[in-house]
Amino acid sequence: MKGLVNSVAYADGLRIGEVAIPDISEVLKQPGRFVWVGLHEPDDEMLAEIQQEFSLHDLAVEDAVDRSTGGIDYGETHVFVGSNYVVSVRHGGSLPYVEVRSRCEASPDLLVKGPGFVLYALMDFIVDQYFPLVDTFEDKLAALEDNIFRQTLTRETTERIYQLKRDLLEVKRGVAPLVDICNRLVRADVALIPDDARVYFRDVYDHTIRINEMVDTLRELLTTALEANLSLISVSQNDAMKRLAGWAAIIAVPTMIAGIYGMNFKFMPELDWPFGYPLTMTVMVGACAFLYYKFKRSGWL
Amino acid sequence: MKGLVNSVAYADGLRIGEVAIPDISEVLKQPGRFVWVGLHEPDDEMLAEIQQEFSLHDLAVEDAVDRSTGGIDYGETHVFVGSNYVVSVRHGGSLPYVEVRSRCEASPDLLVKGPGFVLYALMDFIVDQYFPLVDTFEDKLAALEDNIFRQTLTRETTERIYQLKRDLLEVKRGVAPLVDICNRLVRADVALIPDDARVYFRDVYDHTIRINEMVDTLRELLTTALEANLSLISVSQNDAMKRLAGWAAIIAVPTMIAGIYGMNFKFMPELDWPFGYPLTMTVMVGACAFLYYKFKRSGWL
Amino acid sequence: MKGLVNSVAYADGLRIGEVAIPDISEVLKQPGRFVWVGLHEPDDEMLAEIQQEFSLHDLAVEDAVDRSTGGIDYGETHVFVGSNYVVSVRHGGSLPYVEVRSRCEASPDLLVKGPGFVLYALMDFIVDQYFPLVDTFEDKLAALEDNIFRQTLTRETTERIYQLKRDLLEVKRGVAPLVDICNRLVRADVALIPDDARVYFRDVYDHTIRINEMVDTLRELLTTALEANLSLISVSQNDAMKRLAGWAAIIAVPTMIAGIYGMNFKFMPELDWPFGYPLTMTVMVGACAFLYYKFKRSGWL
Amino acid sequence: MKGLVNSVAYADGLRIGEVAIPDISEVLKQPGRFVWVGLHEPDDEMLAEIQQEFSLHDLAVEDAVDRSTGGIDYGETHVFVGSNYVVSVRHGGSLPYVEVRSRCEASPDLLVKGPGFVLYALMDFIVDQYFPLVDTFEDKLAALEDNIFRQTLTRETTERIYQLKRDLLEVKRGVAPLVDICNRLVRADVALIPDDARVYFRDVYDHTIRINEMVDTLRELLTTALEANLSLISVSQNDAMKRLAGWAAIIAVPTMIAGIYGMNFKFMPELDWPFGYPLTMTVMVGACAFLYYKFKRSGWL
Amino acid sequence: MKGLVNSVAYADGLRIGEVAIPDISEVLKQPGRFVWVGLHEPDDEMLAEIQQEFSLHDLAVEDAVDRSTGGIDYGETHVFVGSNYVVSVRHGGSLPYVEVRSRCEASPDLLVKGPGFVLYALMDFIVDQYFPLVDTFEDKLAALEDNIFRQTLTRETTERIYQLKRDLLEVKRGVAPLVDICNRLVRADVALIPDDARVYFRDVYDHTIRINEMVDTLRELLTTALEANLSLISVSQNDAMKRLAGWAAIIAVPTMIAGIYGMNFKFMPELDWPFGYPLTMTVMVGACAFLYYKFKRSGWL
Repeated sequence: MKGLVNSVAYADGLRIGEVAIPDISEVLKQPGRFVWVGLHEPDDEMLAEIQQEFSLHDLAVEDAVDRSTGGIDYGETHVFVGSNYVVSVRHGGSLPYVEVRSRCEASPDLLVKGPGFVLYALMDFIVDQYFPLVDTFEDKLAALEDNIFRQTLTRETTERIYQLKRDLLEVKRGVAPLVDICNRLVRADVALIPDDARVYFRDVYDHTIRINEMVDTLRELLTTALEANLSLISVSQNDAMKRLAGWAAIIAVPTMIAGIYGMNFKFMPELDWPFGYPLTMTVMVGACAFLYYKFKRSGWL
Repeated sequence: MKGLVNSVAYADGLRIGEVAIPDISEVLKQPGRFVWVGLHEPDDEMLAEIQQEFSLHDLAVEDAVDRSTGGIDYGETHVFVGSNYVVSVRHGGSLPYVEVRSRCEASPDLLVKGPGFVLYALMDFIVDQYFPLVDTFEDKLAALEDNIFRQTLTRETTERIYQLKRDLLEVKRGVAPLVDICNRLVRADVALIPDDARVYFRDVYDHTIRINEMVDTLRELLTTALEANLSLISVSQNDAMKRLAGWAAIIAVPTMIAGIYGMNFKFMPELDWPFGYPLTMTVMVGACAFLYYKFKRSGWL
Repeated sequence: MKGLVNSVAYADGLRIGEVAIPDISEVLKQPGRFVWVGLHEPDDEMLAEIQQEFSLHDLAVEDAVDRSTGGIDYGETHVFVGSNYVVSVRHGGSLPYVEVRSRCEASPDLLVKGPGFVLYALMDFIVDQYFPLVDTFEDKLAALEDNIFRQTLTRETTERIYQLKRDLLEVKRGVAPLVDICNRLVRADVALIPDDARVYFRDVYDHTIRINEMVDTLRELLTTALEANLSLISVSQNDAMKRLAGWAAIIAVPTMIAGIYGMNFKFMPELDWPFGYPLTMTVMVGACAFLYYKFKRSGWL
Repeated sequence: MKGLVNSVAYADGLRIGEVAIPDISEVLKQPGRFVWVGLHEPDDEMLAEIQQEFSLHDLAVEDAVDRSTGGIDYGETHVFVGSNYVVSVRHGGSLPYVEVRSRCEASPDLLVKGPGFVLYALMDFIVDQYFPLVDTFEDKLAALEDNIFRQTLTRETTERIYQLKRDLLEVKRGVAPLVDICNRLVRADVALIPDDARVYFRDVYDHTIRINEMVDTLRELLTTALEANLSLISVSQNDAMKRLAGWAAIIAVPTMIAGIYGMNFKFMPELDWPFGYPLTMTVMVGACAFLYYKFKRSGWL
Repeated sequence: MKGLVNSVAYADGLRIGEVAIPDISEVLKQPGRFVWVGLHEPDDEMLAEIQQEFSLHDLAVEDAVDRSTGGIDYGETHVFVGSNYVVSVRHGGSLPYVEVRSRCEASPDLLVKGPGFVLYALMDFIVDQYFPLVDTFEDKLAALEDNIFRQTLTRETTERIYQLKRDLLEVKRGVAPLVDICNRLVRADVALIPDDARVYFRDVYDHTIRINEMVDTLRELLTTALEANLSLISVSQNDAMKRLAGWAAIIAVPTMIAGIYGMNFKFMPELDWPFGYPLTMTVMVGACAFLYYKFKRSGWL
């Protein structure tokens, strides 16, 4: 049986003390008390006992067990809240909630509001973790923009745009249920949230909306960045082709002239001229110089 | 008359026994009982008898007959639920519901809730089949990404992106009605779902929403992957063009020089120099080396 | 005065007999009767008389006259329904409603429900015409996919994708008002639809939703197909460029060597070697073979 | 003080006579009368007096003054409606409303419904002006399609697609507020619209929805047309490259052969053959013909 | 303690006088008075005192402190409104609200409506700042269009399209919460907005909606502009390739002919013809002229 982080009973906003798991159902019978249990990747045995002690619904616990694992792991948390208990089940790489607990215990005037406030504190903590994450994404996008518009085009730029979009969509999928839950907590008649606590969830809700908007803005910018990147690749291809064409012409002209005077006709008067060779060379160089000047002026070279 | 899988009567959450189809209408008259009939691709005769026994509506049965067949077949199921009966009509390649039935029979405390619970069990089973399917899609996408960003560009990559998107949209079209139905079952006043069973449909609803989100994320990633693929094709074309241009220049320069000394002018002093030939060869090799070095440094070769 | 298809009075679900247009207002005064008039591209005179006999609203009739004509013509139908009449005005190339009428008359138990049921029968008929149409589109898309991924790239492929999308959007515009109307008929308190008939419109509604989803899926696939097509064009361009570059190199190398030995230097020892020529030819062929092998291995040829 | 088009009082659906602006407030005091004032680009002085006479709200008048001017000018109209007055303020290039007034005056049975009906007549007039406009856009798109799929690719095609999209979005922005207003007039409890007049606004609403759908269809088609255009440009580039490659090869081969027999080796037996030259020429022509045939067959030329 | 701009008490729509911050809580106790405090980037000490004097909620003040800083700074404002106070906290580069205050004080008949009207005045001021901003964007887009369709293609065009889109999305994110807030103020039962003031917020709401639509139109146009730009880059590449191919052919043909007459066959009768050389030159020039004419006519040169 592993996975227990801590299990504490509270009354009147104050910490009473640790509670052993088998004693929880006893404590829950006492009025004015609530129990807050923190779990981290509990095994099945632990979950089964927790379910029994808190009389949790089968369906809820089931979802807390089988969790998807993929791509970047922003962690996943399941919270069970009742009128006199809070159980948080944390999975993966998210930050531990010890800090939330100590912050809650530091403000008894708020903790006295009960499990609803603890739920708020947990959600606020989870949501606030997304802000620095999205900030990182904005920095990455800024670096990508510099790559796209200032530096040479590489295959990596495209891949990094793609990866950033992938990560963003992962974040969006992480935030989506939070928006949904906050919305339900703010509007619906959830008995366990006292009316004066609703403003807290409104605050979390606004934060999730804001993260969602930031993510959407980034998404649209990334899509545009990918298209801008493609445009610049084409521009660069255009430039390469023009340069290729320009130099090809500059080399082809003297080659053609040389070919002409390499013909073996018996009667080619120029071949006998004393200055035929230097004249031809001058013409060649002149033609090349002229072409170079023309191409340079029209921006092909 | 073919297509019957099984037909069983239940009372108080327990299996009473098999019921012959002509006896169904009799059993339905007994209070506290319900009949659960499973059909698999029934013929018209069977459907007609089932309709008569259960007094099903014409429209409902009609839709269960004419079913579209196309692309990938994720199967299709029609369920008729009444206060004392459940009829499931399964088509195509989906998994049989025998497993659902045995799981239901194994938990009489839930089965006692009646046809509403059976409906939940069926829907839960159908929805849960989509998770491994979507996981397969995620694996395929990961393989595609490797193809796009690591390996050579082939026509197959594009085709596979397209096919994956096609399959995804097929899944989306399969899930869409489930979302709709769950939503109606959770919210509307459907008499046949007791209030304490609504939480079960809420669970199925959340699962369908989650599949939908997974599918949407994959869809957007595939769109981005297709664009990234196009970008990389252009980058690769760019590289090819630069290499082409570079080698063309390296070969064109000595060809031009050779052409010049192939001219037949009478007075070309270099031709008479003893070291004219090796000197010219040195110049040629030097020019080529210089160009090679320049192109190499600017990344064209 | 032209455009009348038929005009029949019904009572208790049974056909009483044809009614001359001027007698309609008389028949409508009799309780328990309703009149069903079918028109096909009526002239203004006919419409005016129909309006008078049924006391139709100016606005409704006006819209039934001026109809847009464009692109593909899936026909257009206006239906006026009252508590004791149904008037259908059909335009363009849609199928005639004679079949609907005979089907309705064949089931008096349903026809007894009155004009509401006739409205359902008409809408069901119209909506069901879209299924084979969308199926045709799916076949066309399958053919297009084969074109894109299997065969040579032609300008026609792009045009056919565009045309298919155009036709699809035409269908969408045709279905959109049906979805809207069904939705209103199912939900709102439209007095003329008895409650037990609402299930029929729910069925039509579900069909329109399904067509809409099929159209949307096709639309998204077509967008993806267009992008995939562009990718493949670029891949094909890439291949062409590589082949061009490869053959250019293979031909350029012997040309360069030949140029060198075509120079007229006095002192070129190789020119006097007895095996100079065959040796040079061997080198040329060897260089070409080497290049060919290299390009072949790297997939450029 | 300029901008007055006309100012007329009505009672019982009939025109009573023109009203001087300073007398308006007097007329408004008489029961059963309403005043309809038409303005065209009034100056500030005029607007101020109108505001005073009708006691209009500051905010409303303010918006009617500062109007945006940009791109194509489809005109802009502000309408103030009260229980006994209608004031229309027309800006820009839209058609004058004299026609609306005469049509209204021609049907006293409708005009008796008061300012609500005048509002309908104005809106119907404005909305119906969009239909020919959208028709023009459809013709332009058809011409563009012909350009894209039938004719040579020019820079203008792209620009025209862009311009058409720009104009369409302008129309959309013009229609959007109309949809919004109609929707409010149909649903909300706007006291000034009698219930039997609501059907008229429903009709205008349906028209705005229809225009909106037409605009959206055109928008999507234009997006697709732009992509199809890009595809065809790429196809055309592909063709050009293949033709370039083909001719390059056809010319390069005889050049290479000629280069070989231009070498100055002492011992080249072919040079002394009597038929060396015609044989070589035959080989050259044969090689070119063979290449031409091959390229022609594979569609490169 | 820094950041105070001004702090004034009002009664009956008239300015009573400045209030020192520590006296605010006293003034708030007097009925019929309200205090309007303007802050600009206050330090934590100031905010703490303000919070205490007005008994503001912790959450609200917290959000007003930590503000994101990024990209272009359109400023950010937090407003706290109660039944008898308004506190505005301005950050960043937005215009100061002194003007709003003087405008409010100039119309005591409106100011008498209390804090609700001040809130309107502030929001109206903020929203109206967006109109010139969006106008600037429209001018920038017009300049970009000129760049895309009239001038040479440069890398900067793509970058400027991207930057404009980035800025637009920034504006959208700035306007989004305003739309949300106005919507809530117009619809919900916010006690502090008297019913006759709701029309003012309706006006602000309409303005935000209008800005939103302008931004969306610009966004879609920018997306189209980016695609059009890509198309034109491809067209331009196409032109470059055709010109390259054309000139390559014109130079390659005489080079080939020269090569042929550069062969050293003993028996080449043309070489001995007196007019062999001028004839060959004529053929060369003729071939070039013919090719030039052909390419010119087909638009390749």
